[in-house]
Amino acid sequence: MDIRPIGVFDSGVGGLTVVKQVMKVMPQENIVYFGDTARVPYGTKSKEAVTKYSLQNVRFLQTKDVKAIIVACNTASSNSLEAMRASTDIPIFGVVVPGVEAALRATKNGRVGVIGTAATVRSGAYERMICGANPQIQVFSKACPLFVPLAEEGWTDNEVSRLAAQNYLTELTQKGIDALVLGCTHYPLLKRCIGTAVGDAVKLVDPAKATAQQVMTFLAERGQRNETQGEGERRFYLSDTTDTFGFLCQKALKRRYEAQIIDIETY
Amino acid sequence: MDIRPIGVFDSGVGGLTVVKQVMKVMPQENIVYFGDTARVPYGTKSKEAVTKYSLQNVRFLQTKDVKAIIVACNTASSNSLEAMRASTDIPIFGVVVPGVEAALRATKNGRVGVIGTAATVRSGAYERMICGANPQIQVFSKACPLFVPLAEEGWTDNEVSRLAAQNYLTELTQKGIDALVLGCTHYPLLKRCIGTAVGDAVKLVDPAKATAQQVMTFLAERGQRNETQGEGERRFYLSDTTDTFGFLCQKALKRRYEAQIIDIETY
Repeated sequence: MDIRPIGVFDSGVGGLTVVKQVMKVMPQENIVYFGDTARVPYGTKSKEAVTKYSLQNVRFLQTKDVKAIIVACNTASSNSLEAMRASTDIPIFGVVVPGVEAALRATKNGRVGVIGTAATVRSGAYERMICGANPQIQVFSKACPLFVPLAEEGWTDNEVSRLAAQNYLTELTQKGIDALVLGCTHYPLLKRCIGTAVGDAVKLVDPAKATAQQVMTFLAERGQRNETQGEGERRFYLSDTTDTFGFLCQKALKRRYEAQIIDIETY
Repeated sequence: MDIRPIGVFDSGVGGLTVVKQVMKVMPQENIVYFGDTARVPYGTKSKEAVTKYSLQNVRFLQTKDVKAIIVACNTASSNSLEAMRASTDIPIFGVVVPGVEAALRATKNGRVGVIGTAATVRSGAYERMICGANPQIQVFSKACPLFVPLAEEGWTDNEVSRLAAQNYLTELTQKGIDALVLGCTHYPLLKRCIGTAVGDAVKLVDPAKATAQQVMTFLAERGQRNETQGEGERRFYLSDTTDTFGFLCQKALKRRYEAQIIDIETY
């Protein structure tokens, strides 16, 4: 048994949707969350910038003595996972591999859509891994840069977000996809409006659930689960103050938490 | 006469709309532009973060031996101007004061709207200065956080941006404003769609023009204009690569420029 916390980081506060899934499947685990709100978003930035920031985030979480790190951010998972793994012995989990496995399970007709930030789509990570696992499957990717600011603005299902979703997603539904990977931690917040745009026949795949499951299995196999009775402790760190943290805590975790501000550039 | 360049910085590439105005009124001046594309946007961040970044940007421009610095970014101008001025002897010009003067000239009925990022509106800088100059004037402010990502996505005048503009601006037009300050360097790119939302009776005020004029007067009074014949040299630095730079160079400056990438965190 290992009572050390699980570290989770994201480019901002979107990763709280991943924390939600971790809390659901492993309520007794301690969690340390870091949201890089000073440098959010990662999705519009270069691979080099995303990698530099990701390495700093890993170094910060290491100072909290974590037993594993979940990279909640799809952009960091698809651009910088190798670099992070090369930098530390702590096991690091991205959201892409579990997301890929969930997509493979979800599709019946072999036509899968992937939506994410510009950097995630540009990396081609989902496409490469889905086709690597099953070359029969066709993947159609689309960057939806406005979904993050729409979610942060709280416009998760109004006429503007519905119109933006239609603009982005019509070309994917025309390809006849039957599964759509929500390849960005913010997108589950827009689930209803994305669902309306693609129709009921398309299954929405949220990599966060599969990721939490994968980490649980990994820890259990190594006897590293925290088996202490009761609910684990959750600590939240941000690199800048933001109103969105409180709003998303309520929306995703149904609870208030306080966040501590740290200077990530010094790590 | 002083042939040293004028420094201009912005949180990203939106400040190219300010460079455009500087090039128009002072074509022979040399210009060094820095766009903090690695940490864009500033508008959603705290005063502390914006000030820290602004001071680094000033330090970087100082290494280029500039004779004056224009803070093209409204968020930095309204949150961090004092801190920047305290940090150096180089004259520093924000866009807020010239924008305020232009708004005072534009309004006939004394009802002025101001739109900007969340941080600009939260700072209250425009409101304070407009009312300071003329307490009779009523100011109505509104943060429009989606306008920057809309402009960066190239959706400057489509159905999504028109609907977003309507959502944001209806409450301002209902107040009976006759002038609207575009308090963010990106907003002139959405001019048509903002104009449609507020109607022809509302005059749109772009602080960039007034700023370029103010800097020209300042330099002329001190005999610091560059009177060399021909067009000045323009150099562009960014803290991260971005496709938007090329797109905006074409759109705002009608020309291609190359940008050099620098690591701003080391300044």
